[in-house]
Amino acid sequence: MTTKKKSPSRDRSDLQTDLHPVPGFTAGGIHGGIKQGGRRDLALIVSDPPARAAGVFTKNHVKAAPVLISQTRVRSGPCKAVLANSGNANACTGDPGLKDAIGLCKRTAQLLGVDEHEVLVASTGGIGKRLPVGRIRASLPRLLERVRPGGLQETAETIRTTDRFPKALWTRGKVGGETVTLCGIAKGAGMIRPDMATMLAFFLTDLKAPTTALRRMLQEGSEQSFNRITVDGDMSTNDTALLLANGRAKNRSAGFGTGEYEAFTNLLFPMMGELAAMMVRDGEGATKEVEIRVRGARSDEEANLLAFQLAHSPLVKTSFYGRDPNWGRLMAALGSAGPWVHPQRIDIFYDRVCLVRNGVGRGGKSEEQARKVLRKAGFTVTIDLHVGSGSARVLTCDLTHDYVSLNASYPS
Amino acid sequence: MTTKKKSPSRDRSDLQTDLHPVPGFTAGGIHGGIKQGGRRDLALIVSDPPARAAGVFTKNHVKAAPVLISQTRVRSGPCKAVLANSGNANACTGDPGLKDAIGLCKRTAQLLGVDEHEVLVASTGGIGKRLPVGRIRASLPRLLERVRPGGLQETAETIRTTDRFPKALWTRGKVGGETVTLCGIAKGAGMIRPDMATMLAFFLTDLKAPTTALRRMLQEGSEQSFNRITVDGDMSTNDTALLLANGRAKNRSAGFGTGEYEAFTNLLFPMMGELAAMMVRDGEGATKEVEIRVRGARSDEEANLLAFQLAHSPLVKTSFYGRDPNWGRLMAALGSAGPWVHPQRIDIFYDRVCLVRNGVGRGGKSEEQARKVLRKAGFTVTIDLHVGSGSARVLTCDLTHDYVSLNASYPS
Repeated sequence: MTTKKKSPSRDRSDLQTDLHPVPGFTAGGIHGGIKQGGRRDLALIVSDPPARAAGVFTKNHVKAAPVLISQTRVRSGPCKAVLANSGNANACTGDPGLKDAIGLCKRTAQLLGVDEHEVLVASTGGIGKRLPVGRIRASLPRLLERVRPGGLQETAETIRTTDRFPKALWTRGKVGGETVTLCGIAKGAGMIRPDMATMLAFFLTDLKAPTTALRRMLQEGSEQSFNRITVDGDMSTNDTALLLANGRAKNRSAGFGTGEYEAFTNLLFPMMGELAAMMVRDGEGATKEVEIRVRGARSDEEANLLAFQLAHSPLVKTSFYGRDPNWGRLMAALGSAGPWVHPQRIDIFYDRVCLVRNGVGRGGKSEEQARKVLRKAGFTVTIDLHVGSGSARVLTCDLTHDYVSLNASYPS
Repeated sequence: MTTKKKSPSRDRSDLQTDLHPVPGFTAGGIHGGIKQGGRRDLALIVSDPPARAAGVFTKNHVKAAPVLISQTRVRSGPCKAVLANSGNANACTGDPGLKDAIGLCKRTAQLLGVDEHEVLVASTGGIGKRLPVGRIRASLPRLLERVRPGGLQETAETIRTTDRFPKALWTRGKVGGETVTLCGIAKGAGMIRPDMATMLAFFLTDLKAPTTALRRMLQEGSEQSFNRITVDGDMSTNDTALLLANGRAKNRSAGFGTGEYEAFTNLLFPMMGELAAMMVRDGEGATKEVEIRVRGARSDEEANLLAFQLAHSPLVKTSFYGRDPNWGRLMAALGSAGPWVHPQRIDIFYDRVCLVRNGVGRGGKSEEQARKVLRKAGFTVTIDLHVGSGSARVLTCDLTHDYVSLNASYPS
């Protein structure tokens, strides 16, 4: 996933997987009695001073209790802390589930000595089961003792569910003459396992910026990263991305349209893009990471529709898995997405190999070359429609036997 | 699949799988040099006198050559014959492919002594390869000798591709005081294997009816049958359904709104529904046939969207395969389909077992009972949204390891 970069000189090579502290932030994770086997499942992130915050949330009409709470609170004022748990989504739990989450925020706020509205909450795990509130409440004092500047990595570990690897990145750069630090912590194995479905992402920074600017950059960055990936098209009830900025860097405020805003998004957007790509790579059962590029569409919106049609098509995805340059499936998917296309103008490329020209397969050698591309763990499929100048990119993965095994948990 | 029945007294039990002749129709199939191994791949259906005809075709913008030809010709006049082949879709073959198909129709018309516009054509098989026109042309005289009143079963066999079993039904009933015969021949294993993707369906009858009525009944019947099934949501370049009526029964003409129209649709609609259900049962790798019913939606259109969202969701379909009453996946899919839903009003049933009431799982015994339902080869999932009176039904199947194997043709 390459996000639209504001500055070509900045790229993901500046992102580190070793997490250093972010000024003003402490974090940590413990076993709070949710998961089996004493594994860490309860995390806390604390900001001193309280951070300005922005959030983006699942568009699913069925929203988990923590989403309902956090999406309201994030609009109302500063954020002192984020309480996050894995092992239980607190979704489809009705009013009792809502009360559970509100109560846990309240208790955390009491222990921190702040207003309860300054505590946000996020959950990921199984749908439809109540949280073990008693055990969690009893664990909170221990969790507060655990938070520390060096606890970011532990937090990333704590929010994992089906993730095969933790997803966290750290970077630092100059913004308005001051050094600004940014850390991103995420979980999500392609947002596809609804028993434990969810993408959570927390971006922590000492940037000084108005809340309106934070909202805008998180929205724009998500559009170019988390909203451009798909594993199977299913949408979680719990997706949550938060951007917390506590202003410790004392930079000139990064208002929208300023050089500071641009400088910070040059740190943030590549990080969001890379975290999104890590989720696709970790997509359940995935063996291949495939970027779908559509260009020459009548509009960006239509290009987007067409790219997602390919990215979701089970037949296209099984052809990637089978290393089969089956361009007929791509043509059929393009024709059925909705937007008008002119079949006899369509070109299709696997990486740089042109397999289809003007809607007709070129066969022979190009098919042989495409087969080689399909053997790679990552490649790009480019569709040129030649009917306009709209374009879009989506990152997807293949559909495999392991995907079915993981999600069917077939009783053998 | 139960279609909307005009008369409750008629049902699919009147449908026979033994095919008897239909007055005025002859048919047959031979090996025309398309498939490997000398298998039958070229079929011809002839009507005497020429039939009034109606057709419905794929909505895919990428249409195969035979679709482009037949959808024009079916509107222009009577139909003497249908030339159909399996083993090659003649799709994405550009202008040369179009000329191939036109040439074959012309040659067939010459041999039959009719105008070339009276010959329709349909193809199914691999995309992107030219037809072996020379071999097919050379076979046509032999094919014409082969057609006979008792050749309908052979025709059903000839148009098979990945179908595990042939799909053909026969029935007879009174229409306007006369006995009318109807035979339906179809192929399609869930319309999902784009190498050989396609649903073809030919309905042959001696009914007398105006063309406008035939169009209307084919359209309405398709809406309730072929358009209500899904295996993986992919759409073929070649889907074709034709209704040919040669008027031999000499019934009072079955114009729209007449008792004759209604009497005939009581024969036709159950047949279309049953053929559609046979395709889902034959869905590649499918082990279960699941009817999704959505009711209490704000409109039929929204109910339809929600039903298809469930029917296409890989997570919902793998849960059927895994016999897992994972209602959280259904809730998440319902919330992400687009239409507004009120999570706390949703009820979910597996057959008659109520698993979710007011958006919350009932757990315990009902989960145990739902597990029993999931062990069946066919069952119904009913969603009651309680926000309106819209309803819809869709027939789908599960997503299995075999689906991936069949479509990945993974090089082991």
